[in-house]
Amino acid sequence: MSVQLQVSTSKKTEFVDITSEVERVMRESGVQNGLCHVFVPHTTAGVTINENWDPSVRTDMLSVLDHLAPASGCYRHAEGNAPAHIKASLMGSSQTVLVEGGRLVFGSWQGIFLTEFDGPRRRRVLVKVVPDAAP
Amino acid sequence: MSVQLQVSTSKKTEFVDITSEVERVMRESGVQNGLCHVFVPHTTAGVTINENWDPSVRTDMLSVLDHLAPASGCYRHAEGNAPAHIKASLMGSSQTVLVEGGRLVFGSWQGIFLTEFDGPRRRRVLVKVVPDAAP
Amino acid sequence: MSVQLQVSTSKKTEFVDITSEVERVMRESGVQNGLCHVFVPHTTAGVTINENWDPSVRTDMLSVLDHLAPASGCYRHAEGNAPAHIKASLMGSSQTVLVEGGRLVFGSWQGIFLTEFDGPRRRRVLVKVVPDAAP
Repeated sequence: MSVQLQVSTSKKTEFVDITSEVERVMRESGVQNGLCHVFVPHTTAGVTINENWDPSVRTDMLSVLDHLAPASGCYRHAEGNAPAHIKASLMGSSQTVLVEGGRLVFGSWQGIFLTEFDGPRRRRVLVKVVPDAAP
Repeated sequence: MSVQLQVSTSKKTEFVDITSEVERVMRESGVQNGLCHVFVPHTTAGVTINENWDPSVRTDMLSVLDHLAPASGCYRHAEGNAPAHIKASLMGSSQTVLVEGGRLVFGSWQGIFLTEFDGPRRRRVLVKVVPDAAP
Repeated sequence: MSVQLQVSTSKKTEFVDITSEVERVMRESGVQNGLCHVFVPHTTAGVTINENWDPSVRTDMLSVLDHLAPASGCYRHAEGNAPAHIKASLMGSSQTVLVEGGRLVFGSWQGIFLTEFDGPRRRRVLVKVVPDAAP
């Protein structure tokens, strides 16, 4: 079964670092080797893996995404959040991370982020840790 | 093993809702808890998860993607479908969905779409449902 | 456990075809049916699946990505590689491929690429092959 995280976002668009929460779920699963699947059950938020050291990286990424799908564009969808939908699909709704020796296998600068594109809202993130089959 | 779906697209670019077909494969697998992997073995079509309620969301998403990789751009690839290739990679060639209690764990508004960028064509979608290992 | 590939890139931005290296890891795993997960532990490189026949497809894709996140843009991140970060997230940090009959299930024209956006560098690619559980 999966574990559900609650993430409260505070801005219209924002990358929220959820690395430590995902690591906690992974540790509590007791799994030593396997895979960790992170799924966002929303259509105007996604999940991505990128640098979690210099916060200006996230600022720049959000700014490029705003440029790709501008809020001022001409959209049909009446709710006014069409750019949020395309940004969510550009980032993706799930990420898969390797688990080895009881740890998430990230590169030195990698972390995992909920990508909010229509906040502020309460968001859910599902984390499922799957152990390798016994050999 | 995977199950292969056949999807006939009817337009040059189009999001085709395949949620019910993927759900059917998942149900027929008999898996109660596990993961469902959806893979598109094409290079000018992809797969994404987004809103399947208001169809204008898909229209807007296609329109943004057309803006990002315009058909009128200057490309080297002689077949004239270079924009379709980059759009396919922007959406992705696979999606992973959680299975719990014999159901796909989607958010309220989520569905899964074949994203056609060089149609109309007959496309294939591979669906593989993997049960959790016995505890 | 995963197997680590070493990939040396030779340009600033480049798609490096790693299909045969991933296939080799898959073969050496001895797995007949399962899944192959490919993960890139970097924040300025990613991994995508697309056409590995006509190299002009990759040239066009890189050119569209340069247009989406231009090197000349105004960015906050001091290292000057902000475009590389967003391009990496647009492509994604992992790909999942089905394994059937001891082979990666790719479409006729598909291959898997390390997508370098801040080279030249030495990059790592992690490949993990997971067999289906015994029925």
